[in-house]
Formats: sequence, structure tokens, C-alpha cells
Amino acid sequence: MDLYGRDLICTQDWTFEELMAVLELAAKMKRERFSERWSSVLKHKTFFMFFYNPSVRTRQSFECAATELGGHAQYLEPRAMRLKTAASAGETVEDAAKVMSRYAAGIGIRILEDQVPYYGAGDELLLEYAYWADVPIINMADDRFHPCQGLADVMGWAEWYGQGPGRPDYTALQGKKLLLTWASGALARSWCSVQEALLIASRFGMHITLAYPEGYDLDSQVIAWTKAHCAAHGTSFEIIHDPESGYEGAHIVYSRNWVSPQAYQDGMFQKQSEIQKALAYPGWTTTAERMARTDNAIFTHPMPVDRGSEVTDEVASGPRSVIYDVAENRLHVQKAILALTMGNL
Amino acid sequence: MDLYGRDLICTQDWTFEELMAVLELAAKMKRERFSERWSSVLKHKTFFMFFYNPSVRTRQSFECAATELGGHAQYLEPRAMRLKTAASAGETVEDAAKVMSRYAAGIGIRILEDQVPYYGAGDELLLEYAYWADVPIINMADDRFHPCQGLADVMGWAEWYGQGPGRPDYTALQGKKLLLTWASGALARSWCSVQEALLIASRFGMHITLAYPEGYDLDSQVIAWTKAHCAAHGTSFEIIHDPESGYEGAHIVYSRNWVSPQAYQDGMFQKQSEIQKALAYPGWTTTAERMARTDNAIFTHPMPVDRGSEVTDEVASGPRSVIYDVAENRLHVQKAILALTMGNL
Amino acid sequence: MDLYGRDLICTQDWTFEELMAVLELAAKMKRERFSERWSSVLKHKTFFMFFYNPSVRTRQSFECAATELGGHAQYLEPRAMRLKTAASAGETVEDAAKVMSRYAAGIGIRILEDQVPYYGAGDELLLEYAYWADVPIINMADDRFHPCQGLADVMGWAEWYGQGPGRPDYTALQGKKLLLTWASGALARSWCSVQEALLIASRFGMHITLAYPEGYDLDSQVIAWTKAHCAAHGTSFEIIHDPESGYEGAHIVYSRNWVSPQAYQDGMFQKQSEIQKALAYPGWTTTAERMARTDNAIFTHPMPVDRGSEVTDEVASGPRSVIYDVAENRLHVQKAILALTMGNL
Repeated sequence: MDLYGRDLICTQDWTFEELMAVLELAAKMKRERFSERWSSVLKHKTFFMFFYNPSVRTRQSFECAATELGGHAQYLEPRAMRLKTAASAGETVEDAAKVMSRYAAGIGIRILEDQVPYYGAGDELLLEYAYWADVPIINMADDRFHPCQGLADVMGWAEWYGQGPGRPDYTALQGKKLLLTWASGALARSWCSVQEALLIASRFGMHITLAYPEGYDLDSQVIAWTKAHCAAHGTSFEIIHDPESGYEGAHIVYSRNWVSPQAYQDGMFQKQSEIQKALAYPGWTTTAERMARTDNAIFTHPMPVDRGSEVTDEVASGPRSVIYDVAENRLHVQKAILALTMGNL
Repeated sequence: MDLYGRDLICTQDWTFEELMAVLELAAKMKRERFSERWSSVLKHKTFFMFFYNPSVRTRQSFECAATELGGHAQYLEPRAMRLKTAASAGETVEDAAKVMSRYAAGIGIRILEDQVPYYGAGDELLLEYAYWADVPIINMADDRFHPCQGLADVMGWAEWYGQGPGRPDYTALQGKKLLLTWASGALARSWCSVQEALLIASRFGMHITLAYPEGYDLDSQVIAWTKAHCAAHGTSFEIIHDPESGYEGAHIVYSRNWVSPQAYQDGMFQKQSEIQKALAYPGWTTTAERMARTDNAIFTHPMPVDRGSEVTDEVASGPRSVIYDVAENRLHVQKAILALTMGNL
Repeated sequence: MDLYGRDLICTQDWTFEELMAVLELAAKMKRERFSERWSSVLKHKTFFMFFYNPSVRTRQSFECAATELGGHAQYLEPRAMRLKTAASAGETVEDAAKVMSRYAAGIGIRILEDQVPYYGAGDELLLEYAYWADVPIINMADDRFHPCQGLADVMGWAEWYGQGPGRPDYTALQGKKLLLTWASGALARSWCSVQEALLIASRFGMHITLAYPEGYDLDSQVIAWTKAHCAAHGTSFEIIHDPESGYEGAHIVYSRNWVSPQAYQDGMFQKQSEIQKALAYPGWTTTAERMARTDNAIFTHPMPVDRGSEVTDEVASGPRSVIYDVAENRLHVQKAILALTMGNL
């Protein structure tokens, strides 16, 4: 297996063995964080980070990752880049990607709902960059997928059901039940993290209960892929529309606000109307009472957490919250991805 | 003495011996700037710089410091960070600090008057970060204190009264007279630098004359601490309200505009009204004539200098101006702080 | 020859031998890009990049250059810097440059038309920085000159007429004909790249045909210098005002939109009126038909390319387009400049 030069747009594009190669290297890198083994992997190399949407955690973790591998991550914002659009003169993706390939070992891109005219347009832009670039394109979250988050999630869960930090056991996840539930809140959040969680959890042999109010359906392609993974593993996949019953027997609870399929209207993302719509569904909050009905579940979330709406403080800061471990794993997973796709390993 | 893991919010929180450890290491680092001795101290480690207020000199000097220690400083702006406030959903300081502690060796924060609703709220935010973070919090200037500036000041003065650049003599400062005077100008400046100067000058055994127009009182806690230091050393502390008499016999002249205690009204910083108020006090400018009445004093200022208002060009660019030496010392002092609190020494 | 400590504001300020030293080192660095020979040249040193105007390619290539030399480039924007102006208090260039010289090995500055009140004011600012700074000032594009672009251009041309990437032959350029032509488009572009191209092409012994609509004259000093170079080499220099005839016999075609000498009015750059003015000259586009009349010319452009206006896709993406090679050479040329003016070579 050789991942050198590969793009990572969605975990779905990579085989299970390829994903495991990332996860195993990530665990090694977590156990020996500043070892000389990894500190020259990107020596004097540059990773471009292209943030159409600003981000704190993604930027912090990718820039740390490049630094710890001996390289450097450049933080770039497209406001400084005159890209060609239907309405204005500017540079084509062909030209931008071709030149960046001459300078950098790889390019990360983040583009979310509010920067694109319709659902999927962000992911399409990544695919266009991948078509023209001669170096790997890494998805740092687009409007459909968030592969680094999905890999960090499953690594964190496998650590908790395995032998602890840096010692994940992925077989321990087989047959566990994930409750992935919509949550109340006024943040009109993306589909990318929860969709990647569905794909990866089903890929690793988990039962899945997806809970959300009527009208909050996710991407039908993602649901189809998830069902196919569950069918291949003989695990269950169910969709429910109440905020309570999914907690029964769950081993992992993942609650997160997301927008409805009507979020795009008139060629733009309608954040305010989505916030209004979500206000009609209070009470979709993960509480200690609800957690008490699970099979001693852990609580997971991709952060930032909207405390009080998505989850109570008691659960988010409680002893079975894995949110900081998962956040830390973003660093290790991304170091492994950079090392395997563009490094001297 | 072990400073590893320590926060630095104000010099007042550290013992004299601890401050001297920083100053002695800073002088060594200045004498041997690019020596191999220091160039792996932060190897592959990340220092987060959190700028609620933008800054040139502080950013330049901290980022250079991390680079020269073999590490990397990330420039972060909170506009990209959805922090929870009374009015809006977002991330808590608990969550932000806990995650950043997983990625970085330490966190610097800068937050000044115009970003906070009342005096002291910036300093309180640093204390909240320090409470939750598992790594050192370094104050890069808040609305009360500016410890790195204070240390750079006293290092620069001790070089001039000692054996020159990189060869400070701190005992030579004992019994010297500091004139710290309010200055004219339309910049509505912070209290943090001058307050830190009072604390550190009194700590190092200097006589202090504090001069300002009636109505420009500083933080009463800082004044009380300063008086206590002077009492312990048997040195004098006086407050005067004329722009002339303090120059008599001074060895160090520090002039700087600052705002009045009425700068906060209606839950925000009132920059424009403070600028207007200051216009009533022209002539509080350090001139060559005034300097001629001192005991051959040096001129010091934390920069940026408001030439023509705070000081004349003749003095600021003159042979006894130490402003560039003090500015350079920001780098060396900060390298020493990073090395001692988060490095492999 | 010792270039250590030298400013680079315009190629005109350096001797031919000095420019060749840069170009020869750049070619070596291109052939052995990540060799240990270069990776400690700026070890732990900082290069400040001062962007009055944002830029993607210039920032990417300079920041990569510093990284590949073992150093670090800081991306700085002047909005965070309170510089003194006629209308407002702030820091003088004297103070800014003196302090930056204490921190950094060198300073790059970019300032274009829309940030200055009259033509040449950007270049004057660089000269003012150069006067006060104790470290090299590198022009990253100002309103008159763009030396790094000019050097990258000529390196790319000499590779195509030489032995390929990393193996330029500068003598092969002698007697070749450059057509530098104004081009249609709505981007109101700077004079700096085309002026630097005239200076450097004439310096390397090329015949020059400069084509533009009446009223689009360039800087008369640049034209005079260019004529003088041509005279010294015995090559031709002609100015024509039609979009067709210059292609006959050309070996290198360079098409680029630029603004008229009337672009500055009322103390500011009039972008909108310049865009309107240019719309009167459609058809100044480099097409395959026009290229067919040349002596098998290569197509060059400093990018970003305004495809459809300045040049057709067929030419820009065609087999004799050197645009990506020239863009890549920005990196190598800049590494050589940083190494020679501020490195440990």
C-alpha cells in the first residue's frame, strides 16, 4: 500500500486498510509525540492551508501537525485571492492549483455552507482542485465531508473501549451502538461532521441509530453508503424522530445541531431562517438523565460544543466525555495523513 | 527554582529571584543569540498567540522568539473563534483552553481596553484561561499588566547603567530616580505598560516620581503595591501634578500618554471622549530642555512613540534614548520566559 | 562580490554580475531543491513580509523560500500597524524600521497603486525603509518595480531557450525578440511587472517591441533605461500602437493589462475609471492565430492570468506556455536573494 500523493476528500474514497494505516500511524505518533522518528518527515516542506471559512481548531491542529513533522503550514485566506467567478475576472482553479503544486507538498482546503451557492458546491471545488493539482488535496471540512474529524472520532472511541490514550482497539467497536442525534441550538451547523461519523462508524462495524426531527434529513448518498456498510457488517441502521428512545442501550452518544435540506434558497445559505426553524425543536439536548438510560455510554462531539443546547455541562465536562481526547486526536490523525500522503516515511 | 509550567500574568505574581532568573537568561541569550544552546529549546513545539487586539511589535517579537528557540508561534485572531458570551452561543473558555492545551506548549494572550466592557475584564479573561489551561498562559499585554514590557524596560535600563548591551547590572539601578510622567497625545493609551513599569522599578530599588494631571489616577492596587516595594527598599515614592518639576535629578525619564479612570462608560471603552479630554493638557511633552535638568537621564518608552506629543524627535532619536534597546529586549526576555516556562532547558 | 546586507528595490540598482550571481544560485537551488546545502542558510532567522497589499503568489513563494532555507517568514499586514501619516498620530518609519532591524534578518515590502496617493509613492516608501533599516529591504512588488518577477521571468525564458528546468542559458537570449504587449481586461493592473520585464530583457541583450494603445505610456525613466540597455547591446527597441504587427518574428510574447498614466487623480488611484477606459480597447488578446505568426514563440505572463482577455485558454494552457515555470522560479530566485543578502552562505 502506498498513500504517497493521494488526495483525501472523504473517508469513503479510501479502503478500510488505507484508513487503518492512518489510524495505526496516528496511535504510534500519539505514543511517541516528539520522537525523532517523525520530526523530519516534512522537513523544510510547506503545507498550504486554504481557509475559505475561518476556523480555530482545524487551523491550530493542522499547523501544529506540520510543525511537529518538521515542516511549515501556511495559513491562507481566499479574500486575498482573486479567483475567477461567473461574475468577475480572476484566476482559474487550474492556474492556482498548478502554481501551488510547484511550491507546496500538499494543500488543505476548508469551505463550508455559507461560502457556496448550493449544497455540494464546496465539495465540488475540492474535486476541481484535486483534478488540477499535482500534490495531495486534503479536505479540512467541506459542506459534505470532514474525513479528519471522522478519523479522530473513531480513534477516540476505540481508545475508550480499548486500552486508553494512544492504545485504541478498533475491534472493540464492532457491535457497539452509536446514537447520533440532532440537537437543539442556534448555530445552524454543517452536515459534514455528522455525515463523516455515519460513514466511519458503519465502516467499523457499529450499530447506528440516527435521531432527528422530521424535516432534518441528511444527504441521501451518505445514508445509502451507511446502510450498505451496515448491511455488509450485519449491523442495524435505524432512523427515528424522537429525542428520547435512541439512548436505550447506546455505547456512544453523539449529539450535534445541523441544518435542514432547505438551508439553501435563492443560491445562498439561509443561516437566519435555519436558526429560526431550529428554535421550534427545544429539548433535543443530551442530559445526564438521558445518558443514564444508555449502556454506560461515552459522550462524543466534534466541538465547538454549544453547551446548554446540544448537551448539558454535566455531561460535556463529565467523566465519560471524550470530547477533548477526540479533539487531541485531530492532531495525531492529521500528522499521520500528512506523513503518509506527502512525507518522507 | 522551577518555572516550568508557570503562568506569567503580572510580574507581581513572581518572586524577585524568579524574575532575575528570566533576566539573567535573557542577557545570556542576547550575548549568544543564535547559539546552539537555545535553538532546540522549543524544537517542534507550538506557542499559540491569541490577539484579541492586533499588535505589530508584540507579534513580531514573540514569533521571532519561538522561531529562534526552534519552535513555531501561531498567530491567532479571535474573530475566527466563536467564544460564548452572555448574548450569543459559542465555545466556553473551558473548552477552548482544554483543547489548546492538547496542541500547544503554551498560550500567549493580548486583550486591551477596547475589547472589554470594564477595567480589569481583560486581565480576568487571562486568569480564566489560566484556570482551565494545562499549559502556561503568558500575558502579551492586557488592560492591567504587561509583564514582558516591564522586564524589557528594566533590562534596558540596567544595560545603560551597567556594562552595555547584554551586560546589565541590576544593582546599579538601586537608588536611581525614575520619573514616570503622563504625556500629551491623541492615542488614548492603556495603563498596562506604565503600571508594569511602576511595579518593576520599585521592585528593583528605585526612587519613583509619578507625574500626571489631576484626574489621571492609575489603578489603586498597583499604586499600593508600588508604595509597598518602595517602603521595603527605603526608597521614595511621590505623585505630582505638574509637567516640570519631576525632571530634577531624574536618572530615567519615561513619558507616556494614558487614559483617565473615566475611560469606561456604559459598558465600553470611550476612546473618543478620552482623546478629547487629553487635548486639555498640551505641553506634557519630554523635551531637550526638560531633559537638561535631569541627572543626565536616559529616555525610555515602550513604543510606539507618539513623536511630537509624548516626546520631541530630538530626545527620542537622541544619544541617550534607549527605546530601540528596550524594544530589542522584548525578544530576549520573551525567549527566556518561553524557555523557562515551557522549554527543554 | 558580496551581496550580504544589500537592499533589492529594483534590478536596475544591481550590476549585471550581481544579478547573475542570484540567477546562478537560483538554478543550483532548483536542481537540488531540498539539499542540506541550503537548509541552514537562514536557520532560526526571521524574514518579515510586509503586505500593504495582500497577495497569494508572492506570499506563498516568499514564505516557502524562508522555510526551505531553514528560517521563518512572518506575514504582517499594516492594518495592525499604526504608522504616522499627515492626518494621524502613529509610528514613524524610522521607529518601525529600527525596531524591525533588531528582530529580523530582512524585510520584504509589497505596496501597490491602490495604497498610495500618487505614482511612485510606494517605491518611495521602500526607499525610506531602506534608509532607516539596518537589514536588507526586499521589494515584493511596489508601484514601479518588481525585481523578483523580472528575475523569475528571465530565468524561465533562459530555461526554455537553454537546456530546460534548472539549466538556463542566458546567452541564448541575446538577439531574441520580446514582444511585450498591453492586453485587454478589467483588472486595472500595475506597471511594476512589465516595467521590470523591460529593464531585465534589455539588460540581457534582447530586441524589444513594446505594443500598446495610444495613451498607455509607461514610466519615462524606465523607457529611457531600457533604450540605454538596448543601445549598449546594439539591439532594437520600438514602440508600436497596434495589437497585431509586433507578433512577427517574436521569440517571447508577454501580454498583460496595465493602467494609463491618468490612473491617479485627486490623490488616489482611480481603479473604476481605468477599467472603463480599458473597455474601449477590446481585441488586445494573445491568440493562437497571432502566436502562429511568431518565430515559434513561448508565451510568458507574471500571473494571475486574466484568461479570455489577456490571452486565450489555448495559448495559456498550451505547450509553449511558460507561465507555471516562471511562477515556480519566483521561489528559486527569492531563495537565492534571501540567501545572498541575509544568509549564512
